[in-house]
Amino acid sequence: MTRDPRYDILFEPVQIGPVTARNRFYQVPHCTGIGWTQPETLARLRGIKAEGGWAVVATEETEIHPTGDCEPFHEGRLWDDRDVPAMALMADAVHEHGALAAIEIMHHGASAANWGTRLAPLAPSHRPIIYYSPVQARAMDKQDIRDLRGWHREAAVRSKKAGFDIVYVYATHDLSIAQHFLSRRKNDRIDEYGGSLENRVRLLRELIEDTKDAVGDKCAVALRFCGDELIGDDGLTYDGEARDVVEMLAELPDLWDVNISTWPNDSQTSRFAKEGFQEEYTSFVKKLTTKPVVGVGRFTSPDTMVSQIRRGLMDFIGAARPSIADPFLPKKIEEGRIDDIRECIGCNMCVSSDYTSTNLRCTQNPTMGEEWRRGWHPEIIPPKRSEGTVLVVGAGPAGLEAALAAARRGFDVHLAEAGSELGGRVIRESRLPGLSEWARVRDWRVGQLERMANVSIYRDSALEAEHILEFGARHVAIATGSTWRRDGVGRDSGFAIPGFDGPSVYTPDDVMTGRDPEAGPVIIWDDDHYYMGGVLAELCRYAGHEVVLVTPAAMVSAWTVNTLEALPIAKRLARMGIEVVPYTSVVGFDGAQVRLRSGLTGEETSRSAGALVTVTARLPLDDLHEQLRDRWEGAGIASIARIGDCWAPSTIQQAVYSGHKWARGLDEEPELLIPRELPFIESGRVQQR
Amino acid sequence: MTRDPRYDILFEPVQIGPVTARNRFYQVPHCTGIGWTQPETLARLRGIKAEGGWAVVATEETEIHPTGDCEPFHEGRLWDDRDVPAMALMADAVHEHGALAAIEIMHHGASAANWGTRLAPLAPSHRPIIYYSPVQARAMDKQDIRDLRGWHREAAVRSKKAGFDIVYVYATHDLSIAQHFLSRRKNDRIDEYGGSLENRVRLLRELIEDTKDAVGDKCAVALRFCGDELIGDDGLTYDGEARDVVEMLAELPDLWDVNISTWPNDSQTSRFAKEGFQEEYTSFVKKLTTKPVVGVGRFTSPDTMVSQIRRGLMDFIGAARPSIADPFLPKKIEEGRIDDIRECIGCNMCVSSDYTSTNLRCTQNPTMGEEWRRGWHPEIIPPKRSEGTVLVVGAGPAGLEAALAAARRGFDVHLAEAGSELGGRVIRESRLPGLSEWARVRDWRVGQLERMANVSIYRDSALEAEHILEFGARHVAIATGSTWRRDGVGRDSGFAIPGFDGPSVYTPDDVMTGRDPEAGPVIIWDDDHYYMGGVLAELCRYAGHEVVLVTPAAMVSAWTVNTLEALPIAKRLARMGIEVVPYTSVVGFDGAQVRLRSGLTGEETSRSAGALVTVTARLPLDDLHEQLRDRWEGAGIASIARIGDCWAPSTIQQAVYSGHKWARGLDEEPELLIPRELPFIESGRVQQR
Repeated sequence: MTRDPRYDILFEPVQIGPVTARNRFYQVPHCTGIGWTQPETLARLRGIKAEGGWAVVATEETEIHPTGDCEPFHEGRLWDDRDVPAMALMADAVHEHGALAAIEIMHHGASAANWGTRLAPLAPSHRPIIYYSPVQARAMDKQDIRDLRGWHREAAVRSKKAGFDIVYVYATHDLSIAQHFLSRRKNDRIDEYGGSLENRVRLLRELIEDTKDAVGDKCAVALRFCGDELIGDDGLTYDGEARDVVEMLAELPDLWDVNISTWPNDSQTSRFAKEGFQEEYTSFVKKLTTKPVVGVGRFTSPDTMVSQIRRGLMDFIGAARPSIADPFLPKKIEEGRIDDIRECIGCNMCVSSDYTSTNLRCTQNPTMGEEWRRGWHPEIIPPKRSEGTVLVVGAGPAGLEAALAAARRGFDVHLAEAGSELGGRVIRESRLPGLSEWARVRDWRVGQLERMANVSIYRDSALEAEHILEFGARHVAIATGSTWRRDGVGRDSGFAIPGFDGPSVYTPDDVMTGRDPEAGPVIIWDDDHYYMGGVLAELCRYAGHEVVLVTPAAMVSAWTVNTLEALPIAKRLARMGIEVVPYTSVVGFDGAQVRLRSGLTGEETSRSAGALVTVTARLPLDDLHEQLRDRWEGAGIASIARIGDCWAPSTIQQAVYSGHKWARGLDEEPELLIPRELPFIESGRVQQR
Repeated sequence: MTRDPRYDILFEPVQIGPVTARNRFYQVPHCTGIGWTQPETLARLRGIKAEGGWAVVATEETEIHPTGDCEPFHEGRLWDDRDVPAMALMADAVHEHGALAAIEIMHHGASAANWGTRLAPLAPSHRPIIYYSPVQARAMDKQDIRDLRGWHREAAVRSKKAGFDIVYVYATHDLSIAQHFLSRRKNDRIDEYGGSLENRVRLLRELIEDTKDAVGDKCAVALRFCGDELIGDDGLTYDGEARDVVEMLAELPDLWDVNISTWPNDSQTSRFAKEGFQEEYTSFVKKLTTKPVVGVGRFTSPDTMVSQIRRGLMDFIGAARPSIADPFLPKKIEEGRIDDIRECIGCNMCVSSDYTSTNLRCTQNPTMGEEWRRGWHPEIIPPKRSEGTVLVVGAGPAGLEAALAAARRGFDVHLAEAGSELGGRVIRESRLPGLSEWARVRDWRVGQLERMANVSIYRDSALEAEHILEFGARHVAIATGSTWRRDGVGRDSGFAIPGFDGPSVYTPDDVMTGRDPEAGPVIIWDDDHYYMGGVLAELCRYAGHEVVLVTPAAMVSAWTVNTLEALPIAKRLARMGIEVVPYTSVVGFDGAQVRLRSGLTGEETSRSAGALVTVTARLPLDDLHEQLRDRWEGAGIASIARIGDCWAPSTIQQAVYSGHKWARGLDEEPELLIPRELPFIESGRVQQR
């Protein structure tokens, strides 16, 4: 295929100070949950982005000194020379594919507790640190500021030594000391670093100047900055102090990388923000500088990208999440393979990797985080090593991905779906309020499958055990999904809850398939703690019901802390007039009254309810597998496996991953030892792989 | 000194299957925040416990397989042979000092999300996993059970290979798959592993038998078990199914290590439970078995320990927290140095290390977690290398520890305290409801200091800058603490809050020094999120006031999740009738009405208040240092430093640590590179130290 000429503009080289980017695709710094703890893993991950066509590939936050140590989060480190070899691994991996390597050196200031190093955090003024840790940052004196500048300069020099082409100065997300100095609410100094904006911007200016002085001969110096903090005049605003700062520093950095602060604002999920959502807050920057500007907005559409450039909003299409969902996004546009782009769904499972300090994961891209230890590549999959047909039963996220990956390996694939539509849970869930982009999980896979000659798709084809035994497939995947429990069993109660067998009890499956609560008040019993309870509460409220969400947790959708959604969800529900009752268990329902028990006092009370929606746990739909258990080996079938929710109900991300892993494992030796990066010990070096 | 003969019983050797413990002091398995990630660090930490006289020193939880991977928590790993060298490091370090090394091999089952390995968790029946993660464990089939037994057996064999003397089977804290099988509420299997208790105990019995069979020739096999889950008949109870299990398995393991489940119940803070609090739930075990029994209860008093043995409650004094606060506790009793025992205060800062995945820390023992990287030993401190007097200004936790550590180094130490009592914030805070044991921070240090000939203590001695300059000290530590802000500035508001300068506004300092709110309702504005807000709410409630605690967080005392206290605090406040208003900011006070703003809707409301207690942030009391800043170098003073809260307000743990570190650093070269354990990379080995 050839590229549509209207996308040519995206492939123009752009100069950034002393270096030149080969095109306009720019992977901005983003966390991975990996950081300094697994250098090989990280280098391979970043290298593949470069291979996929990004002109610039950046690190995550990279700490410059032990006084800004954000453990337990796994970010980069360039504390001293001991860290150079690990960082050089990544720069080399990026260079191997012709991209520029960028490094976001930074100091956390009052955004880290220093739990690991036990040093006092630093700040312009005495302030408690974020995350509610019982630790305060101390006000820096002049020597502290000189020290900080020295550490930053030394880290810049080490960055150059490690081979990086672009060195950042970081002042956004409320995670950087340079931004803390800028902030009126955090800086009440009375010296030349506080008071007027000119004074508050002084440290940031000095850091940029120092960096240019130290490494500007060979490296470009980028400034990552926030156009707005979304807290009005207490913070930086696009028509107030943020604009003033950009005016002051306009030509000083070699590049402006702009977004909105804090991280939850910058990385909003698709439930709360759509492609290009930052434009209002960041578009002013390009008007004030001649230097190239990078902007973000979860861009996945090349037409939108072109529009961003043509309208003069930015010079580079910045991306974190879209580059995770599809590391080859630039290459696909370059080669005119627009339909192959695997678009980010904006679910923030990637963010949860950082919050759980584990390898980056992605709903759309099952290879993410597995590049080193499992040797997976997002675009290359080993061809099959044996003949035989593959039958996938069920076309939900696991089945679709399994079919696709097996087909890409060269197997003849048959995909049978009981329903008339493909997508399984993704069909149902993407119709819930705010989740429409989740349909991309289905759409991309269906689009790919329908173009493959070795794939047969059967709709309205509920298979029974006999069909499977007679089908003649060599490998069978059962991907029949799961069903929400109706009996109330889950975390809070291990036993069925009295009255849940009555007619006014609804499961999420009921509601999603159109069996709506007929009468309110609707009580949502949310013992699931991810999005489902909150989303169903919204849905029932839109239907006009009075809605009360009861949860044993302290807050609604407690796990969504890990996707940056906890506060947005709580806000939305409050603004919709949905009452949340925390620390409370549902212990019974008689069709008219829900029986509640306080998790704090043990007290029991009742609330009237026209309907009870129970969101607790799921059961795999694995009857088919059960029926085949002792019969398949005699039927010429070489392997049969459950994948996705049918194996173990989990996230859509895990379902896709499960399907992909199954297809990779067909006719391969079973995985015995997963390669691991281990700490060095003097007494015994063991093989990692 | 010689030992009181009544303690002789504590030093009797006790046989455990094929091995013999030299005395009755038993460091039960406990987390460290270190686990597999820092083998050298961990080995040194555990080795020092052995040196301190513990007869048995155990690991933390040690995972046997990637299907039970609890990242981001740092526990032990013995997934395969690659992990043996690291575990052997620890066993060797323990053996070096004549103790037995024990290893708690285990499988997390439905208590881990496997975020790292991306494998489905395992459980007796389909159930969501703990921590609200959107992941379910899948019901194991017979092959899964056989596999699990195989992994456990292989891990036992590896344990023996690594040199361990005692191998655990783990079934408590609701963190182990063996306990999940035992649990009626988690096990609804209909095969021989579910249903009757005899069936539910089958897996546990098999794991013990397998382990004995695999390594029982050389290694003792211990069972860690819970006497009660504190949830009535939904769980195991000391007079119900827990008792029945002990009866069934009485003679099977070589040792019973008993406690109460879950971890928050087992490791209750001193605010909620006192020494020996587990007796009611665990004392039955010894009556049912002839095998040695280990019990815990935060034992620090040798008389209580003797009583536990004499009364036939246990054979070994088990300890986790007391062994952290004083690794040399056994040695001190053995040598008749009872007054030297540094008693655990039950604050659970140690637990917060596990929750933040960083080196174990302890309020009482500042060397904890620093044994390898800083080379610190709890009992040995390098003698001074230069002459000169030390002056410590302020006798709070930092000042007391600084004085003590400097005195132990051989310096002539002068400790000046402005007040009539020593202890600083510890005096005030230990008088708050539930915190009386915190006084041990002061009492132990004062007790030590008063017996040292090279220490002079001056009470009622507020020093001014002139005094210090004239004192003739070579090294000066300013440890004058901090003061709670009165203006409302903190996390939630960076600016002073209108009306906070009025007469009915109280800081924690006011309340702690006897300026009690005169009239209710009392509004506690808690933007601190650790214990202070909740404790003051209790205090004001005991005084008879109506009390409302307002917090911008989703829950009261949000950070105490890390000390296992969040739910107990919420329960206590609810039961005392204290209202908690979450997601809300205080934005003004006119002396009669507190102005509130919802963090969810932005809506502003008012509440009447007779008093407002503001708990936001602190300011260092560092005027003295400021006055000395440009004058001390001419006055014959070699160094002057701020320590503790005067340097940066933080926890008492950090204050003690800060004082200790200062004393260690006197007349030493400045610390430049902190040794670190880094991941191995092929491309470049760098020095860790």
